[in-house]
Amino acid sequence: MATLLDKTIENIEEIKIDADGAIRARLDELAIPRKSLGRLEELAIVYASIRGTARTNKFVHATQMHKVIFTMAGDHGIVEEGVSLFPQEVTRQMVLNFIDGGAAINVLARHVGARVIVVDCGVASDFGNITPPQSPPSQGGDKGGYNNSTSPRFCIKKIGYGTKNMLKGPAMSRGEAMRAIEGGIEVFEEELPDGIDIAGTGDMGIGNTTPSSAILAVLTGTDIEEVTGRGTGLDDIALKKKIATIKQVLKVNKPDVSDPVDVLAKVGGFEIGAIAGLCLAAARHRIPVLLDGFISTVGALIACRLSPKVNNYLIASHKSVEKGHGFVLEYLGKKPLLDLNLRLGEGTGAALGMSLVEAGVKILTQMATFSNAKVSKPQPT
Amino acid sequence: MATLLDKTIENIEEIKIDADGAIRARLDELAIPRKSLGRLEELAIVYASIRGTARTNKFVHATQMHKVIFTMAGDHGIVEEGVSLFPQEVTRQMVLNFIDGGAAINVLARHVGARVIVVDCGVASDFGNITPPQSPPSQGGDKGGYNNSTSPRFCIKKIGYGTKNMLKGPAMSRGEAMRAIEGGIEVFEEELPDGIDIAGTGDMGIGNTTPSSAILAVLTGTDIEEVTGRGTGLDDIALKKKIATIKQVLKVNKPDVSDPVDVLAKVGGFEIGAIAGLCLAAARHRIPVLLDGFISTVGALIACRLSPKVNNYLIASHKSVEKGHGFVLEYLGKKPLLDLNLRLGEGTGAALGMSLVEAGVKILTQMATFSNAKVSKPQPT
Repeated sequence: MATLLDKTIENIEEIKIDADGAIRARLDELAIPRKSLGRLEELAIVYASIRGTARTNKFVHATQMHKVIFTMAGDHGIVEEGVSLFPQEVTRQMVLNFIDGGAAINVLARHVGARVIVVDCGVASDFGNITPPQSPPSQGGDKGGYNNSTSPRFCIKKIGYGTKNMLKGPAMSRGEAMRAIEGGIEVFEEELPDGIDIAGTGDMGIGNTTPSSAILAVLTGTDIEEVTGRGTGLDDIALKKKIATIKQVLKVNKPDVSDPVDVLAKVGGFEIGAIAGLCLAAARHRIPVLLDGFISTVGALIACRLSPKVNNYLIASHKSVEKGHGFVLEYLGKKPLLDLNLRLGEGTGAALGMSLVEAGVKILTQMATFSNAKVSKPQPT
Repeated sequence: MATLLDKTIENIEEIKIDADGAIRARLDELAIPRKSLGRLEELAIVYASIRGTARTNKFVHATQMHKVIFTMAGDHGIVEEGVSLFPQEVTRQMVLNFIDGGAAINVLARHVGARVIVVDCGVASDFGNITPPQSPPSQGGDKGGYNNSTSPRFCIKKIGYGTKNMLKGPAMSRGEAMRAIEGGIEVFEEELPDGIDIAGTGDMGIGNTTPSSAILAVLTGTDIEEVTGRGTGLDDIALKKKIATIKQVLKVNKPDVSDPVDVLAKVGGFEIGAIAGLCLAAARHRIPVLLDGFISTVGALIACRLSPKVNNYLIASHKSVEKGHGFVLEYLGKKPLLDLNLRLGEGTGAALGMSLVEAGVKILTQMATFSNAKVSKPQPT
């Protein structure tokens, strides 16, 4: 029987980003010097190539895009080895903070008018019967300003209570890796009826730069040192220890580079798998994905290995400070929109980036042309 | 009697951007790894240093910033010499397009929730009794999405019907240069009662990269070639001619580098003077200014020469493709927020940039702290 993952991959269409076709021709009619809006015009082309003309033209009028950030949370057994500055309990505390509306991703999502979906992919403890507050969030909500400032939705796709310590064996079983990816597909598809024009990835998981660096090193055949950074702020000694730990993790587990699910199972994380699933699901539904930082982009790399067609659906929101992010972006052929020295995750860069994509689409759909604004065209020189 | 310009300059306070003071301390309490929101945190510090704590804390709750873009328009006698691809009439046509709500700046200002003030500083013809449309703009208005999406205001501060051809003598008289700057001050102060938390510059004027390059070369003692670019898209031959024209303009006029008003009068433009005035007025009222592209930044350079205290009130929104913009930004010590290959003007980059400043301020004011979100702090390693 075909799995959800198989069906998702089968249904991803190959798309072409049509830089010189009808969308370019339409942009050239707008009353501005040709290509003078640079990357905003390129974003419009990417969006319209993915979504098609009819769904792009929705934004001719007052409509705002349905923008949705998925913040995937999970814990990591490897934190026992001291790879993070923060204690493991912070993953759970931050999930509660997301639900309460007080985290950076809540503030930035409200700012750009995006919904936030918080997903427990494998946090080390339970949350009980938590429902997001219906009254304004306690940290000062921006309820008035934007349309989409509803409280975050909380979704449980829990694969386990944190991964195992991968220094001692695989982080998870192959079945768990599959379910982590499928959890990402499911959470995306469950959100579809409420409208998604553009999706953003996000992550929360103390210690999760460690599996991300491990996955990236394996899948690209790169030295650990080249793709391992300071995470939330390790000093030189702790960074050296982290690198040595990852080297040992790869020796112990010997992940199979030709099998992305094996790599995810042996040296990955639940939320990283869910991000991969989200990218696959978005591509399957022809919806562009704004990649957040390092962890998100590694999740996207797994998705691209499972189906290379995914790549054209991905947009890089920003370049993180975390070492390895620039490398994986280049590896995927993505030029980030922003370079603001962010290194937080949660989906914060994706939130800012999707607002730029929306701006580009509005340029394409809402501007006057030379002809209808009665503006003279350039003169021959 | 002291002029408006004198009074404005006298009342500009010297401010310090306080990178290590109380605002930094507050940011360090937020439940994120220290400095992990990079430039967003720096923007919060800049904003709060300029506005002070009380006015910054307005944004703890639902309030949106009052964001205002001033798009200054003027014509240039030098276009007779073929320095632009577009005919002069386009300045007037684009002003009408701004008023009608169909231009790029209208789309992007609606997107970020900013007001647009269109100013005739010296367009070559009159506009008659034009009032902005009160019904939705004909090009598809985004009325529903944001609070501030009112129709643009149109303001007349007309100094003349275009500057004179500066190849044959001064672009304008010294009195006109003074009035151009004061027009910028006036338009800012007239808008103050409606609320301005952050201002953005913008320009429209066929041919206006030519005076901008001339001003920049004079005020910084740089070779014309280093600061002269293709504007709306000149080819190599036309660019060479533009450079030769500017060289001749400087020979004919001999502007006095120690006297910014003389430089503006001899080789400047009405809208460039108005942008300088806007920067002075914003500084005088302790309101940050988002600089748009090349023309705007040259206007700001004039303001800084009139009062060096202005510099700390300026934020560079983006780096334009136009040659010379990177140079003047570096000269002013400004690192642009965005690098999206824009080269349009109108205030388009400023609109995108002010949304990032607003995001940074909301991070400062709306986020939960480690303590009130009950999130554990980093552990000693």
